[in-house]
Amino acid sequence: MIKKRMGAQTVRLDSTPCMIGAACVAGRKEGEGPLGPQCDFIYEDTSMGGGSWEKAESLMQKDALQRAVNKAGVNVNEIGFVFAGDLLNQCIGTTFGVMDFARPFYGLYGACSTMAESLSLAALMIDGGFADNVAALTSSHFCSAERQYRLPLEYGGQRTPTSQWTVTGAGAAILAADGPGPYITHITPGVIVDAGVKDANNMGAAMAPAAYETIKTYRADTGNLPVDAYVTGDLGTVGRKIVEELFAADGAPVKIVDCGEMIFDMHSQDVYAGGSGCACSAVALCAKLIPLLEKGVYNSILFCGTGALLSPVSSAQGQSIPSVCHAVRISNTRG
Amino acid sequence: MIKKRMGAQTVRLDSTPCMIGAACVAGRKEGEGPLGPQCDFIYEDTSMGGGSWEKAESLMQKDALQRAVNKAGVNVNEIGFVFAGDLLNQCIGTTFGVMDFARPFYGLYGACSTMAESLSLAALMIDGGFADNVAALTSSHFCSAERQYRLPLEYGGQRTPTSQWTVTGAGAAILAADGPGPYITHITPGVIVDAGVKDANNMGAAMAPAAYETIKTYRADTGNLPVDAYVTGDLGTVGRKIVEELFAADGAPVKIVDCGEMIFDMHSQDVYAGGSGCACSAVALCAKLIPLLEKGVYNSILFCGTGALLSPVSSAQGQSIPSVCHAVRISNTRG
Repeated sequence: MIKKRMGAQTVRLDSTPCMIGAACVAGRKEGEGPLGPQCDFIYEDTSMGGGSWEKAESLMQKDALQRAVNKAGVNVNEIGFVFAGDLLNQCIGTTFGVMDFARPFYGLYGACSTMAESLSLAALMIDGGFADNVAALTSSHFCSAERQYRLPLEYGGQRTPTSQWTVTGAGAAILAADGPGPYITHITPGVIVDAGVKDANNMGAAMAPAAYETIKTYRADTGNLPVDAYVTGDLGTVGRKIVEELFAADGAPVKIVDCGEMIFDMHSQDVYAGGSGCACSAVALCAKLIPLLEKGVYNSILFCGTGALLSPVSSAQGQSIPSVCHAVRISNTRG
Repeated sequence: MIKKRMGAQTVRLDSTPCMIGAACVAGRKEGEGPLGPQCDFIYEDTSMGGGSWEKAESLMQKDALQRAVNKAGVNVNEIGFVFAGDLLNQCIGTTFGVMDFARPFYGLYGACSTMAESLSLAALMIDGGFADNVAALTSSHFCSAERQYRLPLEYGGQRTPTSQWTVTGAGAAILAADGPGPYITHITPGVIVDAGVKDANNMGAAMAPAAYETIKTYRADTGNLPVDAYVTGDLGTVGRKIVEELFAADGAPVKIVDCGEMIFDMHSQDVYAGGSGCACSAVALCAKLIPLLEKGVYNSILFCGTGALLSPVSSAQGQSIPSVCHAVRISNTRG
């Protein structure tokens, strides 16, 4: 057993990589929500001037990454790796978003877990001594996601009560060996969990078992190393409640805070079960969670990105919706 | 500058992670080609008994990974991370291929560079001390790729002379800290290169500039550390010649060996410019390159996975085809 490995799945990052800069941009609806004022930029136009929603997504990634680089105070050429991905087929939002930076690039596909996946790998790169600075990045766009996964917007399809609203936005973080914090102290990469859910309008239910498994594993692996909040990526109200019920059934209740319930006003913004998409946890991380850590409201969190690993083809072929959850422990202290 | 970093993009892996097991499976056409006898299994049925081509791809990934695990002589539970991806929308070949192994999973999207991308990250994980064993895995399927990227097979579309044939197969490798070799000594992750090519039937021309840039960077970063062969992933005849011409124009000719020209008989198998797809370099690596290293025909190679980062949507929107190339130096000696 490698000494950095704890228990079944967790890696302890002894060097505690530092988040030296983070930024997010978002769309108008997100701008009207509770986190709008904390976003680095709000686009009033859904195409971001890009001419298509897919191109808009690339522009948001580019913008978020440049803003994170600026806030980190590093030169783009000092970025050793960029880890990024999105929901679009073949991750084209990412391709056209990061290519102008001309930095070594590893493309990811983790569905809505991508912010946690990219942060995990970025932290591993810093801890391994493979780069001075590493970028983690993702995006999603309501309009590009709807037409790819469900129906063209023009169709005006009805939404179900369990459905969620894909967040339009992008978030980026830069990691380095040293800095004032917050720090990444542990990661628990997830296994794929298939609870047999087949309803593509109920992603919360599909992803909840993965979140439950990863959080349970983190707790077992680390001897229940405390955090001030367990923050899931985009389970929405339906999925968040399922995770809490699963822990309650174990006799070990855990309170879950979900990014999908943070981004929009759940009463007035008509998003049904909450926000979703790669940008959901990315924007919540950059606009709310990191600031709460910096203000000391939280001393540490377990940031648990959740992703539903389906495609319209797999659903049409009768397959279930397997899911994954990657956890990243972020703390103000290096201990 | 981190000491493991050499030059602009290369990482020197001082611990030289070892490839302790590798396996590949392939389809009937590939079985009839020059590498058929060296594949671990050839499927006679294009659906691999899966009921759909997408499900077939998952079955191939599952099979290749299990065979690699068996050959490595490790227990599945000793795999610390699985790095895998494929060409299908949302990488569903991978999701349903790896989920039964229930190991920590990071999904990748690197198009046809995925074998080199996954090997690179697996090697970094071993060198960083984050796991005892790590799996790298990918797949592609002619039938699922054709209908997703181009036309349904039933349409009987004409192929252009520059077109390539997507390899049906999957390849997997297991890495560990120690073993008899071959070893991964360096990696050069690629930047995205956009040469402005828009012809989705000429991937070789689109990817060639990325291969050229990464090989040139590797040579500059390492002071031209010698290898017995520069092996590109799936440039085919068209792309391979372009890379050779680019180096010749620099006055520093480099001979390129391309996996796309290895897998099929270029005279009799009617594949036009050669093989392509994630499985092209994965199958060539497992069925030919590793055996050549083990026999001492090669002492070292630079394995350069090449990926075209397009989607049918990006092409329809008039976008060019940016590409990436990730290089992995594989050697019989740990020096």
